[in-house]
Amino acid sequence: MRSNSDNNIIKIPEPTLRRLPWYLSNIKLMKEQGGHFVSSTQLSKATGIDASQIAKDLSYIKVSGKPRVGYEATYIIKALEDFLGFTRQHEAFLFGVGNLGGALLNDNGLSQFGLKIAGAFDVRKEIIGTEINGIPIYDINRLPDVNTGARIKIGILTVPIYFAQNVTDWMVACGIKAVWNFTPFRIRVPENIVVQNTSLYAHLAVMFNRLNEEELKR
Amino acid sequence: MRSNSDNNIIKIPEPTLRRLPWYLSNIKLMKEQGGHFVSSTQLSKATGIDASQIAKDLSYIKVSGKPRVGYEATYIIKALEDFLGFTRQHEAFLFGVGNLGGALLNDNGLSQFGLKIAGAFDVRKEIIGTEINGIPIYDINRLPDVNTGARIKIGILTVPIYFAQNVTDWMVACGIKAVWNFTPFRIRVPENIVVQNTSLYAHLAVMFNRLNEEELKR
Repeated sequence: MRSNSDNNIIKIPEPTLRRLPWYLSNIKLMKEQGGHFVSSTQLSKATGIDASQIAKDLSYIKVSGKPRVGYEATYIIKALEDFLGFTRQHEAFLFGVGNLGGALLNDNGLSQFGLKIAGAFDVRKEIIGTEINGIPIYDINRLPDVNTGARIKIGILTVPIYFAQNVTDWMVACGIKAVWNFTPFRIRVPENIVVQNTSLYAHLAVMFNRLNEEELKR
Repeated sequence: MRSNSDNNIIKIPEPTLRRLPWYLSNIKLMKEQGGHFVSSTQLSKATGIDASQIAKDLSYIKVSGKPRVGYEATYIIKALEDFLGFTRQHEAFLFGVGNLGGALLNDNGLSQFGLKIAGAFDVRKEIIGTEINGIPIYDINRLPDVNTGARIKIGILTVPIYFAQNVTDWMVACGIKAVWNFTPFRIRVPENIVVQNTSLYAHLAVMFNRLNEEELKR
């Protein structure tokens, strides 16, 4: 185990990292509506999050507000976008061009948040060699040739659950360091590999359940 | 505030609800590989989750395993799918046919998990009246006419952040009871309305940050 002080890395808590994009979108909105300065009180009102929590979260990105005025909107938007990595282009490969995979290939919105899908991989002969939204689809066996010098470090996993672990192992063997896992399968990776789970189906399950509860109350 | 005993509703903790789809996918995989029975010890090994936690989570769906054998795979798969709402068809409307909205309209995979998008709404004249993947796109002002009898209760929110709150208010006024919010904006709703936030950008931010930390360690 490494301590937080190693290489001066300060580990930012995940809840903070998840709240920062909320602040960003709210500040953008306030700026759009003519606000030049944004206070944590205003942000608190807009987001429902405690003002002291907001100040604490923002302290990680080392911006400081002016007393009684707040943060300068333009400045903090830039600082947040930089900090969150949205202003740098991160290239990624996508694995599994099914329904969801194909949908993500068509989603140009991701590039506004710093993610560019450079290529996709699949096993189906009929789609290998074609393109979706200008993104080439390769045979998954060709990953080592395509990812020369292990240049690309992010893999988006959208394969059927039956292949989730095998494809993950293959990605990692070929230099992928971060897996954005859209499958409802809990993949296992070596300790130094980053995994971000985004299971739309788990979110659906929560929503159906909560909706059902509310219906029963009526 | 209502207590848990009202109308016999047992409120299932959200972490449990999020883990259940993981169990489901792992059990499906084990069954595919020839397993007829699944024990919580096996599930624990496959998912990395404590076996006692798994047993506790599964107790919510009122299935019981056989001592030293475990749960019957076919039975528990059906029980989990029913419990999670994946076997019933829930109709939904989608609001905002941009990049992500269009991608979700093209994702037929959602219907396997019980979600069917019955219609989409936008403000742009050039797409109103057209279809994507067989799903009609309506003028957002026509929502009350299209949602006759407030038949459809789920709204998928994929509008730009600037419109997120207004569109949410409009949905709720027209009978939507659950909002699946894909925007990075924290929407506000009346107490009885369910909100499920799925911010892909927040997940991206976490992944970029963690990847960066790992790179710095090297």
